[in-house]
Amino acid sequence: TQNYRITLLPGDGIGPEIMAVAVEVLNAIGPQHDLQFQFEEAPIGGAAIDATGEPLPAATLETCRRSDAVLLAAIGGYKWDNLPRHQRPETGLLALRAGLDLFANLRPATILPQLVDASSLKRDVVEGVDIMVVRELTGGVYFGQPKGIFETETGEKRGVNTMAYTESEIDRIARVAFETARKRQRKLCSVDKANVLDVSQLWRDRVTAIAADYPDVELSHLYVDNAAMQLVRQPKQFDTIVTGNLFGDILSDAAAMLTGSIGMLPSASIGASGPGVYEPVHGSAPDIAGRDLANPLAQVLSAAMMLRYGLNQPEAASKIEKAVLQVLDEGYRTGDIMSEGMTAVGCKAMGGALLKAL
Amino acid sequence: TQNYRITLLPGDGIGPEIMAVAVEVLNAIGPQHDLQFQFEEAPIGGAAIDATGEPLPAATLETCRRSDAVLLAAIGGYKWDNLPRHQRPETGLLALRAGLDLFANLRPATILPQLVDASSLKRDVVEGVDIMVVRELTGGVYFGQPKGIFETETGEKRGVNTMAYTESEIDRIARVAFETARKRQRKLCSVDKANVLDVSQLWRDRVTAIAADYPDVELSHLYVDNAAMQLVRQPKQFDTIVTGNLFGDILSDAAAMLTGSIGMLPSASIGASGPGVYEPVHGSAPDIAGRDLANPLAQVLSAAMMLRYGLNQPEAASKIEKAVLQVLDEGYRTGDIMSEGMTAVGCKAMGGALLKAL
Ligand SMILES: CC(C)[C@H](C(=O)O)[C@@H](O)C(=O)O
Ligand SMILES: CC(C)[C@H](C(=O)O)[C@@H](O)C(=O)O
Repeated sequence: TQNYRITLLPGDGIGPEIMAVAVEVLNAIGPQHDLQFQFEEAPIGGAAIDATGEPLPAATLETCRRSDAVLLAAIGGYKWDNLPRHQRPETGLLALRAGLDLFANLRPATILPQLVDASSLKRDVVEGVDIMVVRELTGGVYFGQPKGIFETETGEKRGVNTMAYTESEIDRIARVAFETARKRQRKLCSVDKANVLDVSQLWRDRVTAIAADYPDVELSHLYVDNAAMQLVRQPKQFDTIVTGNLFGDILSDAAAMLTGSIGMLPSASIGASGPGVYEPVHGSAPDIAGRDLANPLAQVLSAAMMLRYGLNQPEAASKIEKAVLQVLDEGYRTGDIMSEGMTAVGCKAMGGALLKAL
Repeated sequence: TQNYRITLLPGDGIGPEIMAVAVEVLNAIGPQHDLQFQFEEAPIGGAAIDATGEPLPAATLETCRRSDAVLLAAIGGYKWDNLPRHQRPETGLLALRAGLDLFANLRPATILPQLVDASSLKRDVVEGVDIMVVRELTGGVYFGQPKGIFETETGEKRGVNTMAYTESEIDRIARVAFETARKRQRKLCSVDKANVLDVSQLWRDRVTAIAADYPDVELSHLYVDNAAMQLVRQPKQFDTIVTGNLFGDILSDAAAMLTGSIGMLPSASIGASGPGVYEPVHGSAPDIAGRDLANPLAQVLSAAMMLRYGLNQPEAASKIEKAVLQVLDEGYRTGDIMSEGMTAVGCKAMGGALLKAL
């Protein structure tokens, strides 16, 4: 029996509900593959602010560090929106990424055949879309120094952030991206703004240099504005995309929304060593929290990503992914993906259907 | 008779062809409204690099400064793609913006009823979309100091750009945006990344403060990743958007591509005083240059924007805009917007149809 220590960070809003379903699914899949999960729950985000005053208590980070993988649900809510930034739920998330050195964020945007019509784009444009965005997650303008609000000589305020990357930061994310592309269609598109930004010029130079080690992967480059256009115009042209923290934030969300069903999309954030963090792309949806309305499938698929990328258990991961497709085939839909002729279910019932499928 | 000095910057690729059509249209509309245009042509972009070694020769900037408005076509092409950055066509464009202090970029994204089907989005999602993106154009990470590629203590390279805004930079673009929204549906959405960036926090604070002077305009705020999603999900929710230079670059292109016909979209770049620059959103399309295949309508609509915003001649502007709609109604289409049952024409023939419509 393989033993894994999993930190659960249910967070805020619908977080606890969807996490409960993912835990049930993991507990069901475990015995089938001789895996045993030891779960430890810790507070993050608004829940942690309420309990400790901090969005990422040191004890939570410690628990994460001691575990084999971290499953995160969602953070944030109106309640904490007006706190100063260092006390905001998002700041806890950024601190978690930095604290675990999670420099690579894998964000799939996959159109499931069962949900093609949920997209705002035409069927023939999105059918078969299968994009993986590899976003750098611990550098760029999110973390660059200097930053702050300073006073200029003329006495007015100036807000400043620094968009910066070192060669080694670029190299390591580029390698993750090439490796990822290798397991997919072997097409990697690097996105930058090298026609304007020095940091992007260095980015482009390094990605191009690293490409020499991956002759089997076809590398292309796009400016970020053009990439945003191409995602809307013809998303099928993309296989794997690699880009910096800020561009990745924007493009991975745009790509996710092409599917029309962000309640279905998982993500993985990984480092060079140590535990990764696996979480749905969607937010904490405070408006529907606690009402058994949430879609748990992105959380469940995040658990599958954890098995695949974090624990190297691809068979168990595939089985979960197949179970998700099966419940969709059986017609079960939560409110966010409901369409005519389907069976509307709540969060718990969706979990029940999954357990049956497993 | 009103006399106007117009600087023409045809630039590269299809630039000269589409500019020729716009000039014909202006010459036709002039007498009808008692306007006389004195055109002076100057080199920019690749053409200027070839002629002078610089993408924006001092003489060109001087000519622009002396004129009442600048009509620009398009710059760039493969030929100049590998020059060092300070010699690249794009650098000429940035220098023009800085040199004329064009801090406000107005980028409409309008779906024309005749071209709804060109969109990759579903008809009911895009029908009636009419968005104006007000992009700050002379600040932010495009121009912030320090910037460059530096050596770190450990001897590796670090690419750096600075994303910065002062209060006064934010205030003046916010005012342009509120004024713009006032002439539209009185809804302004400000886009930033205030949950992560200090510069965005200052942006949000200032835009909120300026809003006090525009109680008739409804102000909302979105994070840039969410804005990218919402543009894809439900673009009709937007009226006027205001944002910084980089976010505006990305979002205005994404918004433009929602229409599916960027060959139709004009833009205006204006300053506090002095001439504005009016140009199509599309590029120089070197692959079809010189073959009478280009769509001149965005260039013609840019001339209309010039009349409206630069020369305060809204009637003449409206007449041109109506002529564009009329030739579309008559079924004329260049290749980029061609669809079944329509009449395929080249650039010149489209110009001819416009002149007839006028
Ligand atoms: C909440 C926010 C700080 C975060 C980010 O910008 O990285 C989110 O948008 C994401 O993409 O995970
Ligand atoms: C060519 C480039 C420098 C320019 C920009 O990024 O501003 C272009 O993309 C634009 O939007 O006008």
